[in-house]
Amino acid sequence: MFRSLRRVQQFNCNLLALKRVRVNSKLLICTSRMAASEYRIERDSFGELKVPADKYYGAQTVRSTMNFKIGGPSERMPIQVIKAFGILKRAAAEVNKEFGLDPKIADAIIQAADEVSAGKLDDHFPLVVWQTGSGTQSNMNVNEVISNRAIEILGGKLGSKDPVHPNDHVNKSQSSNDTFPTAMHIAAATEVHHVLLPGLQALHDALAAKAVDFKDIIKIGRTHTQDAVPLSLGQEFSGYVQQVKYSIERVKSAMPRVYELAAGGTAVGTGLNTRIGFAEKIASTVSSLTGLPFITAPNKFEALAAHDAMVELSGALNTVAVSLMKIANDIRFLGSGPRSGLGELILPENEPGSSIMPGKVNPTQCEAITMVAAQVMGNNVAVTIGGSNGHFELNVFKPMIIKNVLNSARLLGDASVSFTNNCVLGIEPNIERINKLMNESLMLVTALNEHIGYDKAATIAKTAHKKGSTLKAVAVELGYLTEEQFDQWVKPSDMLGPK
Amino acid sequence: MFRSLRRVQQFNCNLLALKRVRVNSKLLICTSRMAASEYRIERDSFGELKVPADKYYGAQTVRSTMNFKIGGPSERMPIQVIKAFGILKRAAAEVNKEFGLDPKIADAIIQAADEVSAGKLDDHFPLVVWQTGSGTQSNMNVNEVISNRAIEILGGKLGSKDPVHPNDHVNKSQSSNDTFPTAMHIAAATEVHHVLLPGLQALHDALAAKAVDFKDIIKIGRTHTQDAVPLSLGQEFSGYVQQVKYSIERVKSAMPRVYELAAGGTAVGTGLNTRIGFAEKIASTVSSLTGLPFITAPNKFEALAAHDAMVELSGALNTVAVSLMKIANDIRFLGSGPRSGLGELILPENEPGSSIMPGKVNPTQCEAITMVAAQVMGNNVAVTIGGSNGHFELNVFKPMIIKNVLNSARLLGDASVSFTNNCVLGIEPNIERINKLMNESLMLVTALNEHIGYDKAATIAKTAHKKGSTLKAVAVELGYLTEEQFDQWVKPSDMLGPK
Amino acid sequence: MFRSLRRVQQFNCNLLALKRVRVNSKLLICTSRMAASEYRIERDSFGELKVPADKYYGAQTVRSTMNFKIGGPSERMPIQVIKAFGILKRAAAEVNKEFGLDPKIADAIIQAADEVSAGKLDDHFPLVVWQTGSGTQSNMNVNEVISNRAIEILGGKLGSKDPVHPNDHVNKSQSSNDTFPTAMHIAAATEVHHVLLPGLQALHDALAAKAVDFKDIIKIGRTHTQDAVPLSLGQEFSGYVQQVKYSIERVKSAMPRVYELAAGGTAVGTGLNTRIGFAEKIASTVSSLTGLPFITAPNKFEALAAHDAMVELSGALNTVAVSLMKIANDIRFLGSGPRSGLGELILPENEPGSSIMPGKVNPTQCEAITMVAAQVMGNNVAVTIGGSNGHFELNVFKPMIIKNVLNSARLLGDASVSFTNNCVLGIEPNIERINKLMNESLMLVTALNEHIGYDKAATIAKTAHKKGSTLKAVAVELGYLTEEQFDQWVKPSDMLGPK
Amino acid sequence: MFRSLRRVQQFNCNLLALKRVRVNSKLLICTSRMAASEYRIERDSFGELKVPADKYYGAQTVRSTMNFKIGGPSERMPIQVIKAFGILKRAAAEVNKEFGLDPKIADAIIQAADEVSAGKLDDHFPLVVWQTGSGTQSNMNVNEVISNRAIEILGGKLGSKDPVHPNDHVNKSQSSNDTFPTAMHIAAATEVHHVLLPGLQALHDALAAKAVDFKDIIKIGRTHTQDAVPLSLGQEFSGYVQQVKYSIERVKSAMPRVYELAAGGTAVGTGLNTRIGFAEKIASTVSSLTGLPFITAPNKFEALAAHDAMVELSGALNTVAVSLMKIANDIRFLGSGPRSGLGELILPENEPGSSIMPGKVNPTQCEAITMVAAQVMGNNVAVTIGGSNGHFELNVFKPMIIKNVLNSARLLGDASVSFTNNCVLGIEPNIERINKLMNESLMLVTALNEHIGYDKAATIAKTAHKKGSTLKAVAVELGYLTEEQFDQWVKPSDMLGPK
Repeated sequence: MFRSLRRVQQFNCNLLALKRVRVNSKLLICTSRMAASEYRIERDSFGELKVPADKYYGAQTVRSTMNFKIGGPSERMPIQVIKAFGILKRAAAEVNKEFGLDPKIADAIIQAADEVSAGKLDDHFPLVVWQTGSGTQSNMNVNEVISNRAIEILGGKLGSKDPVHPNDHVNKSQSSNDTFPTAMHIAAATEVHHVLLPGLQALHDALAAKAVDFKDIIKIGRTHTQDAVPLSLGQEFSGYVQQVKYSIERVKSAMPRVYELAAGGTAVGTGLNTRIGFAEKIASTVSSLTGLPFITAPNKFEALAAHDAMVELSGALNTVAVSLMKIANDIRFLGSGPRSGLGELILPENEPGSSIMPGKVNPTQCEAITMVAAQVMGNNVAVTIGGSNGHFELNVFKPMIIKNVLNSARLLGDASVSFTNNCVLGIEPNIERINKLMNESLMLVTALNEHIGYDKAATIAKTAHKKGSTLKAVAVELGYLTEEQFDQWVKPSDMLGPK
Repeated sequence: MFRSLRRVQQFNCNLLALKRVRVNSKLLICTSRMAASEYRIERDSFGELKVPADKYYGAQTVRSTMNFKIGGPSERMPIQVIKAFGILKRAAAEVNKEFGLDPKIADAIIQAADEVSAGKLDDHFPLVVWQTGSGTQSNMNVNEVISNRAIEILGGKLGSKDPVHPNDHVNKSQSSNDTFPTAMHIAAATEVHHVLLPGLQALHDALAAKAVDFKDIIKIGRTHTQDAVPLSLGQEFSGYVQQVKYSIERVKSAMPRVYELAAGGTAVGTGLNTRIGFAEKIASTVSSLTGLPFITAPNKFEALAAHDAMVELSGALNTVAVSLMKIANDIRFLGSGPRSGLGELILPENEPGSSIMPGKVNPTQCEAITMVAAQVMGNNVAVTIGGSNGHFELNVFKPMIIKNVLNSARLLGDASVSFTNNCVLGIEPNIERINKLMNESLMLVTALNEHIGYDKAATIAKTAHKKGSTLKAVAVELGYLTEEQFDQWVKPSDMLGPK
Repeated sequence: MFRSLRRVQQFNCNLLALKRVRVNSKLLICTSRMAASEYRIERDSFGELKVPADKYYGAQTVRSTMNFKIGGPSERMPIQVIKAFGILKRAAAEVNKEFGLDPKIADAIIQAADEVSAGKLDDHFPLVVWQTGSGTQSNMNVNEVISNRAIEILGGKLGSKDPVHPNDHVNKSQSSNDTFPTAMHIAAATEVHHVLLPGLQALHDALAAKAVDFKDIIKIGRTHTQDAVPLSLGQEFSGYVQQVKYSIERVKSAMPRVYELAAGGTAVGTGLNTRIGFAEKIASTVSSLTGLPFITAPNKFEALAAHDAMVELSGALNTVAVSLMKIANDIRFLGSGPRSGLGELILPENEPGSSIMPGKVNPTQCEAITMVAAQVMGNNVAVTIGGSNGHFELNVFKPMIIKNVLNSARLLGDASVSFTNNCVLGIEPNIERINKLMNESLMLVTALNEHIGYDKAATIAKTAHKKGSTLKAVAVELGYLTEEQFDQWVKPSDMLGPK
Repeated sequence: MFRSLRRVQQFNCNLLALKRVRVNSKLLICTSRMAASEYRIERDSFGELKVPADKYYGAQTVRSTMNFKIGGPSERMPIQVIKAFGILKRAAAEVNKEFGLDPKIADAIIQAADEVSAGKLDDHFPLVVWQTGSGTQSNMNVNEVISNRAIEILGGKLGSKDPVHPNDHVNKSQSSNDTFPTAMHIAAATEVHHVLLPGLQALHDALAAKAVDFKDIIKIGRTHTQDAVPLSLGQEFSGYVQQVKYSIERVKSAMPRVYELAAGGTAVGTGLNTRIGFAEKIASTVSSLTGLPFITAPNKFEALAAHDAMVELSGALNTVAVSLMKIANDIRFLGSGPRSGLGELILPENEPGSSIMPGKVNPTQCEAITMVAAQVMGNNVAVTIGGSNGHFELNVFKPMIIKNVLNSARLLGDASVSFTNNCVLGIEPNIERINKLMNESLMLVTALNEHIGYDKAATIAKTAHKKGSTLKAVAVELGYLTEEQFDQWVKPSDMLGPK
């Protein structure tokens, strides 16, 4: 209890404001430890707040940092959302200029917004994901940063809201309710195009090259994890290639609805306080700026109140994770050994193995990507739950949803590249081992059926299994056929396809 | 411990076979309680088994019932899978006939298979989902039933495997490894087309009709669950319409990969023991039989080793569930009351409410469909985990995966129809209540900004909130405007779109 | 669209009532196909309904079957819930008798309720899970069946509600709101005690016996799926034993809150319309009837509005599933082969393997139990989502929640028994293979460090790996030591513990 | 494709090493951009690497940063794991000293380890979670940092491994396989005790105080979201109190197995290379250092190969999330309005509401905590999947598992405090609104049954509902009773419990 109280108190002492906080019926006074020169005073309708002098953000951002001490810096709003906001705010300024916004103000906003999207102002976005579920505070954070930076550009005084007002100018014709989902879609589409799809394509190409390289290597198949009839190593890899090829298709097929932008819906989706055409122009401008085919959402009510498009995309990412888990699991088991595993593949060594046991290659890249896959599957559940809990005109799980979608896209993209470069590209077949297992396989007896009949073939296989001998040795020993006949009839290469 | 032992014993006593089972180092002898006339003897490589005389299935089916006493009758292989097998086995017989199978045998198989797909032999499929992960035992169940029924048609003796052999004829050119996934895809596609999509379409149409009916009813919007600017009830419903429209699109966009059939891949995907062209002909025949655009899978290795197509479809169903959860939640909250809720919608009464409290309409259809939604989200995780755990040439979570996909499709389809007929079609707006809330709303003050300025408008709103009064009364009282001006300027109908 | 409409119509035609249903603005008249002698007329506040003459249920049950055509028979309310209701209704009749209910009526209810809990009336409970989220309709189904059966016992007329009224007598001092969660807890606790825990105990005991049997078999260890230092097969199995031991503890540690019964809370948790002491007496009577330590819930508001106890139990089941997945995966991989896998374990053959390949034992029990594990993990998500969506005084995801909890408990219990009897008990070590892999292992070189120094040891290992030779051969060849020294120094049995 | 290639290239250019990397069959040479004075050369068995001169970490850490470019800085190994390693390494040094390690070396390690656990060296741990699944690289990162810092303390040269060797001294008697899970358990237990439980306790206390404050406020109950019989606001809050009380119990009941430490198991759980007693002494020392009741795991094989204890803890956190979701949802709906919602609670205003609509209080704290709840539910699925995928002697999803468990614990703890301080403590009842809804409720008619009979009571209620009038007005109008009688008989305060 004492420890609990102390912790509560700690949360109430904030460095930025002199504020009276009631904790368990006591009043605590937290005195500021920030020297006067280090901050400026900004004001919102709740009163004055100290803002760090070297930051562009303002009172509403500071207030959010005071009210949402949840998770710390690693839980910040993904920077991709901030950059997407930069793009959106620039687009809005352009369209607003067309509709009459003072060009001087618009141009300053455009310049500041470009700096945001270029990542030059990343330090000015301290808010965590765990804030209001509409993302309003991050929208205001962006508005504050852009307005203050624009004020600076125009020679004004930070915090004066003059000549560039965060709401009246930067947020003009917008509401958090439509801008945040717009930024979500821009960020997700961008991450998919610049990180995820290139990563999957690299993996696809590497696997496809291996499938070609390995096309003539015949190996034992395994079903139920047990020995089965043969296939080529190239055929085995072709299955992986197909999975990744379809992964790319799955992601792409989710994109049409991600390209739909909510901008223009404002507060509840009606578009109140916007001009006819604003929504279309915004989408078209964002499309030009990003090179991606964004359009305005045909129904803004759906675009604010639901995030089905994000759930759909997350579902595609979940399927990608499933594919990658399967592929990486196969590769680590096929590469297991060096002596007591399956040992058909030789995986590249990337780190010192044990100083004692040469040949011990831990399949660390497989481990990283399968961990990523598990994370993506978990993320998908979080997105699903958030998506299902929208109420009335606004879903308020927005920041959580986009955090998880971006995390999944980034991790899958990065892990695919890492897996490609540090594992797949370097995979070599252990031909000796593959041949040994292939030739020892009792399943090859199948080929004898049409020559000596099923019963004799079965006797050969059963005897070989019992004695731990080879099919050929037993077949000859039993007098069913000659060594030459065996070699002629039992050809794994004839078992790889229909006839 | 004693109770535990007894339970273990009970599992070992099976009615069909005299078998010695070791339980905790004891030997139990289970004597059959089945009279001689009630069964026939069938035989497999493990020995003799008693098969119920009135059943078409054979030894391998019986053995599965002995080895997998898991979950009871409600856990049986979904009947849709059995029916899909009927279609597949008929198609295989047709193609095999083309490739030389004795027409008499082929035709008997075709007739028997048709009875399976028509649901006439449902009682002959007792196996549960929790069997071998390849579904081999259900494939054999189907082979046994069709061969015995075909034998009967041809005047033979049940269990004789003559003249129609379950493996050599019914399963010809097939393996469980390719037939089970083929049946999965046929079953899923059929359920989607005959249950899910019609259900969603009915819901879509009903909601769309309401959106039109309600287009002129202006109501208060709610964001963050709090009062916000107005929209029309039709606009609100149009968001739901869009969600269901996209639900249909999402499901459809997952289908191309579901239409791919594994048939022709046989044991590991190579197509060993099939003829060139078999795969394509099977797909084309199944397509004719079902009227759905099935094609042969371009890569059979992927089609056996992974079930990404099922994970993808399940992901689409998950997104549909998310949409329906949102819509049903809104409707139950908007219909809450009669006195102490939001009360904007009047939901149809389908069951006796409390005998005391007239007007208490429990939103039971909303409850059913939201429970379905939660189930589908859970099913999706099960499918995801199963999908990610394939190893080498075969994923062995097949029965679990298809059970969940079919369950989700069926529940969503059925619940959509139930929700449509028993709730959506009968929804009526509570005009009086909607108007009252609308007119009381403080958000309407926004409309005054351009006439009397922001400050005066804010004063009006704040005063009205403090006093619990109306905007109009306060506005007039404060002398800012006349009643006529208020009525002229504050028109919710002007707040429903951009200008 | 046409197909859609037909389906909708089919849902509206019900055999039991002449009812006008509006479908897409059309009126359909469904004429009954049920002959007069086959039904009786019952009545509720909505009017008359035809009830099948041979069924004890009444109008409210029939109405539910009409309004909730979702999922079909396999989706019925789990029979364990119905039996739990039998216990509860008996307990309530006993306590009500104490508080003044006519003993004749009470005793008839007790007799009828006993028949319900004994499973004699299972056919009279046709309702599906996907009904009202409070389970009211199943509570009424029970009330109707018990009252009609009690009426019959007392010589009255079915459907007359005289002398035993479903609400006034069978449901006396109860509400669906407290009875359904009470039945949930009784059913869950019973399933856990009679199915799950005995199953886990049987599995534990079988694994523990194997751990003892295998304690002197030294084998290669595997980390990262790669060769590592040795351990005994008994040690490896002891890890599984610990997992199952803790599985049992985890389930048990969730039970205290499952033993809490909501009965006595009635409509919203206040206990309105009950007598002081009713709640405690009910719990104590249920405890006597079941032999399980049920108590009355200390806070009835929580017991109706939340199902955290079910979520907690489901979480324990989820952890059990995780343990079983790990164990079964290990066993199938250790038993993989016969030639090209790890091959350290010989798993019992339960079904005909391939008629051609002797020794191919598909690990079908591992497959069944891992599929069960995946299902349980999915069920847990459904329960989680349902649990989190309670509103105000009542969680209305009750039937879905209990369905999933019971399904998980049953499947885990049954699968554990099946896995134990059909797999674990029959596992044999492949001593020859284990020794071969053990002796070939390069990791044993570690033992030489203290005798010949790290550098020479490393040279031995590296050379052996390169040449594909044995450590001993290389060591002697390099002249570092004699064969005798090698045998004396490299003893795997000395590597199994701290010194 | 071009974009893809570029991205691949970028991943291969690393600033620290001159390395030839094959990308799609091309050779790229990445020249270092790091000046000579900024780095030192360290060496591992793969060769030389440049290590930043101002960092304590060494070659293996650098190599991991090169091989695992996944996710960026926000995906770093949670700092709590690093701090837990500090505690563990100190404990190991103490025990090793007891067992003979040079005291000078041991003391330097202890000093350096203390700096790690005190957070003084946080910048020296750059590795991401997505590395090897055993966490080996983070263990080596810790070993390198501590050895270099200890070398510095002892006046040696960074990177010389002399006199303090990262493996031989810092990692003495340890393996990544047992240290990483030990650090996981220390970190999880610490986070639970210092963040989660105090947070839950604070929330519990605040809710409990409200339950007392509100005990005499009678309000309408709501079931199925619809009007129901009354309860007190204190009773309603008492349900929340119970949920949080049980949340604390649930977390605590998962801890016994989290207190078990793997240390002493070394490579596969046997304890090879440790001394008898080492495991117990380590656990006891860690217990002393942390004040938490850690013990040595009774079975080390389970402790390395499975992470069931983490899955169990995550399951408890999942249940806590479910509870918090329910509570926060209720509070936001009860506080909805100000005019058109339920409006029974007045939530504290923490941020500027709309500048136009006074009284619009967005329930932002509810939004943050429900988003956290969704995240925790997703995290639980990731942990479940990771936990189920262990193979043989080592689970290699360790970093992912602990990341999610720590994330869940931290977010729940922080969000509970934030929700407590910024929402719960300031909740006020809207007495006027509560009374109005209460008095308008038709459910109160129940109280008249025993005075005027059910039929007349029902008539009153139905008439009142139809007319939109009050029960009292209608009752008097119908002549069934007087106003005085109504006031005497209809007392909500008599409806709050059993009689």
